[in-house]
Amino acid sequence: MRKSIATVSVSGTLTEKLAAIAAAGFDGVEIFENDLLVSPHPPEEIRARAADLGLTIDLYQPFRDFECVPGPLLAANLERAEHKFRVMERLGADLLLVCSNVSPATIRDDDLAAEHLRLLAERAAEHGVRVAYEALAWGRHVNEYLHAWRVVNMADHPALGTCLDSFHILSRGSDPIGIEAIPGEKIFFLQLADAPLLAMDVLQWSRHHRCFPGQGTFDLARLVRHTLNAGYAGPLSLEVFNDHFRQAGTGRTARDGMRSLIALEGELEGASHPSVPTGFAFAELGGTGELGEVLGALGFARTGAHATKPVELWSQGEARLLLNATGTQAPALVAIGLDSPHPTGAVKHAESLLSPVLPRERAPEDAPLDAVAAPDGTEIFFCDTAWLTDFGPGAAAPGEITHIDHVALTQPLHYFDEAALFYRSVLGLQPQESLELPDPYGLLRSKAMSSAPGGDVRMVLNIAQVGAGHTPWQHVALATGDLLATARRLRADHPDLLLPIPANYYDDLEARHDVDPELRELGVLYDRDEHGGEFLHLYTITIGRVFFEIVQRTGGYQGYGALNAPIRLAVQHAGQPMMSQ
Amino acid sequence: MRKSIATVSVSGTLTEKLAAIAAAGFDGVEIFENDLLVSPHPPEEIRARAADLGLTIDLYQPFRDFECVPGPLLAANLERAEHKFRVMERLGADLLLVCSNVSPATIRDDDLAAEHLRLLAERAAEHGVRVAYEALAWGRHVNEYLHAWRVVNMADHPALGTCLDSFHILSRGSDPIGIEAIPGEKIFFLQLADAPLLAMDVLQWSRHHRCFPGQGTFDLARLVRHTLNAGYAGPLSLEVFNDHFRQAGTGRTARDGMRSLIALEGELEGASHPSVPTGFAFAELGGTGELGEVLGALGFARTGAHATKPVELWSQGEARLLLNATGTQAPALVAIGLDSPHPTGAVKHAESLLSPVLPRERAPEDAPLDAVAAPDGTEIFFCDTAWLTDFGPGAAAPGEITHIDHVALTQPLHYFDEAALFYRSVLGLQPQESLELPDPYGLLRSKAMSSAPGGDVRMVLNIAQVGAGHTPWQHVALATGDLLATARRLRADHPDLLLPIPANYYDDLEARHDVDPELRELGVLYDRDEHGGEFLHLYTITIGRVFFEIVQRTGGYQGYGALNAPIRLAVQHAGQPMMSQ
Repeated sequence: MRKSIATVSVSGTLTEKLAAIAAAGFDGVEIFENDLLVSPHPPEEIRARAADLGLTIDLYQPFRDFECVPGPLLAANLERAEHKFRVMERLGADLLLVCSNVSPATIRDDDLAAEHLRLLAERAAEHGVRVAYEALAWGRHVNEYLHAWRVVNMADHPALGTCLDSFHILSRGSDPIGIEAIPGEKIFFLQLADAPLLAMDVLQWSRHHRCFPGQGTFDLARLVRHTLNAGYAGPLSLEVFNDHFRQAGTGRTARDGMRSLIALEGELEGASHPSVPTGFAFAELGGTGELGEVLGALGFARTGAHATKPVELWSQGEARLLLNATGTQAPALVAIGLDSPHPTGAVKHAESLLSPVLPRERAPEDAPLDAVAAPDGTEIFFCDTAWLTDFGPGAAAPGEITHIDHVALTQPLHYFDEAALFYRSVLGLQPQESLELPDPYGLLRSKAMSSAPGGDVRMVLNIAQVGAGHTPWQHVALATGDLLATARRLRADHPDLLLPIPANYYDDLEARHDVDPELRELGVLYDRDEHGGEFLHLYTITIGRVFFEIVQRTGGYQGYGALNAPIRLAVQHAGQPMMSQ
Repeated sequence: MRKSIATVSVSGTLTEKLAAIAAAGFDGVEIFENDLLVSPHPPEEIRARAADLGLTIDLYQPFRDFECVPGPLLAANLERAEHKFRVMERLGADLLLVCSNVSPATIRDDDLAAEHLRLLAERAAEHGVRVAYEALAWGRHVNEYLHAWRVVNMADHPALGTCLDSFHILSRGSDPIGIEAIPGEKIFFLQLADAPLLAMDVLQWSRHHRCFPGQGTFDLARLVRHTLNAGYAGPLSLEVFNDHFRQAGTGRTARDGMRSLIALEGELEGASHPSVPTGFAFAELGGTGELGEVLGALGFARTGAHATKPVELWSQGEARLLLNATGTQAPALVAIGLDSPHPTGAVKHAESLLSPVLPRERAPEDAPLDAVAAPDGTEIFFCDTAWLTDFGPGAAAPGEITHIDHVALTQPLHYFDEAALFYRSVLGLQPQESLELPDPYGLLRSKAMSSAPGGDVRMVLNIAQVGAGHTPWQHVALATGDLLATARRLRADHPDLLLPIPANYYDDLEARHDVDPELRELGVLYDRDEHGGEFLHLYTITIGRVFFEIVQRTGGYQGYGALNAPIRLAVQHAGQPMMSQ
């Protein structure tokens, strides 16, 4: 399907926007009036610029508060419209969006609305322009999409149709199945936006919190299917008002929008993900030295070294960590290897979703490795088992730790939605719980994703909204079958490695739950879900940007001990012993 | 009155919070449980620390979801309470806040609520603890303050009273006059928070958008008056959940909170501001060179030089600008002089509101000048006319420009509320319109303040929420009685000085209003209010961080041409000619 986007959805000047939108692969644009008004370029030049970039101008918008006004105002409104038509002729745009009137002075009379819109359509037709009438969710009188369609139908003019906007329909909880009753040729345009579920004024929700399809909670595939069933043949067009996108990079947001439409198309076609990962092959940490000491203390053994690169493999059970001494960065989580049933298919899928495929500096004898860059810069590798051969014959490394339970990645503030869509569409992970946790210097916002509810690949995306000067931490959580045994050993042999947990925490925990007093002695944290599933976990101190968590899940516990994260954050901030780096 | 604050209102560790709260001059604190749980210090140590700092622990909170539970849960809840009582004994706190139950399983039965609370009070009394029951605005059954009081009254136990929270009362639109019907000795505690008027879920509103008294829209003075009339003799205690405060400096937020209570006390006493400014004495710009050239082009004359400092006075009509060559900073607005009826009273008032009084490096012969630092770093001088004598005999400097109309200052993101309260309480300015305007790279949030509606001192506080790498601009707006004449002269003599306005703006303006075509030729912007008041204005290019606006108001126009600001921002961002600096 043709793909379009409103210029208001990305940041920058109008010419920057057009260039980025074309570069991301869109076919057309909606020109948002304010973007034109503030531009130094006359409409003719914008028209030429778009044409040079291969972009059609699919819509000009918005035209507001037109219909159902008292008599004297109607003439003024038609005069305003004549001006828009002239601008549109210069711009080469032939479709005008008219939003339902929000003015308190609007007359509640559908016949009058139809009469006024018919007058507008007649004038429009003289300029070769068509008019798409849309119900704003907060329209004074017309605020339901089927109501807008009834008015359009009554007006009965070939230059008048309706515009559907997923936000205005789904934010009100309207059922999109009614779209199928509208003749497809009268659906002049379809605008798509997703949004998180927020209990707030719908206008503010619409103006600040829209996001691209797949980043929120709306079922857009269903809405689009109904629209296609109705016979709609126009473009899928993104119209997103989002405070973060306004501040983000133009090209990056345009690509993110295109990724969302490609993923939506895949969903419409019923395409399944070619290679949902089945587990963690490895987590790769930049920096060595003390990281190796810590891994040794955690029971890992150095079981191999890369044949051609300064990378060591440390193993315990099925948990594998790579220590990469390339460069001199402070310890940080730099890459994640995922067990992939079809690595080549996975990377092609990622590429089709506009993910940058990473060039591999590879010696001829190295195993092929397919990798893409995640929005936060983390490298994601799709692995079969061949990669292990690069690290020599290896050796069994038994221990209490069995595998990587999850990794937690800190996201840049303005790209959280982009990251969530990346991990969802490119890796096939499903969003789980979203949380907001107090941090002594701000808030931690957190979204968990997994390869299926209870699947083997779990990731936690965090945004640290904290004051300046605080490091955003990342961590690798390692699973053990007997956390108390692991904790006893660490407490005895490496007490300085463990993050100290305040006694006040245990005073409170023991008041809430009947727990083993050994938890307090060992510094182990505890959570219990409503079904009796239990979670035991402990944290190491931080090395550079990284720390480790060791976890034990029992009774089907699916969470991440989020209730305990504020304890961890406070202790980390409070300048507890950190290894020098 | 005694002043207290909940530890959750400021950022940091519990010990950082206590130190900052004491330093700001509070008498007591509410200990927020999570702050204690994450602290490495046992309750006894916190108690000692508070005592050393001269702080009483006025309240421990919150205790949730206690009353109206089914039988088996009641025993568990009383056990939970016993734990809190023990913690409070260690902490030396004797008042526990109990929030009305929000659980869906709550039984709707006031008799049962009273019975349960009475049981709780009996247990509490054994520990020397009292219980303050509060209606949360989103409580399942009890969510009105008078309902909470009825339950407390029914329970009839000396260790049980009610807690009033201004947010929970005013966010629901309840009339606080009902407070007067509650016996003062049964009002165990009063928590104060202000908030901007937001149409959103009340819980989210409460958890993220509370602010200090005077920073929002609630009439807190009235609520406190009713509470005092009822006979309440406890502290005024701030309890504010605010995402920005969480990320801001601990000491700074604590001082800001104290300032809000001092200002509120002043309001309660009916104290009027001792010296509301009557006009702008001057605006002082750092940097010279090109700034002088620009002022010359705008018709200013260099009418004096400071006797002992590298500061020049440039004048036109009653508009006076100081160019300060001290240091080597890029051109910026560094100070504002305000005509003050009683400069000494004004600075004492500012000092009583915790504003840092600036030390003046003054030669013996210089006129005395009283100044304080605003939260954004701008120096605010309170002036009579003596200051002018430092600049020599001076000379009349006639011209079209008559005076300074307003100054616009960019605020740091996390301190916008603090700035608004400063300008309101310290300078006696009243908040006018608040706006949100599109910027090509984000949003501009803007609040106008003036010495009275239509008063002579107007300021605009802006926050630029834009992507990285964009300069936050400041500007001085100069009033003229004939903008077209000024524009004609500038267009003829200094065309490069004017910010170029896109033709698209005029195409649209002419469709909206019947305006003089000369506006387009001259690059003058236009706005009209609903009463027919008109605003003509133009902008200069930017020098360093600063630009100038020239404005003409007619017909009682009180705004700032905000509709045109997006045009300016786009042209400024688009890399229009800027003088080198």
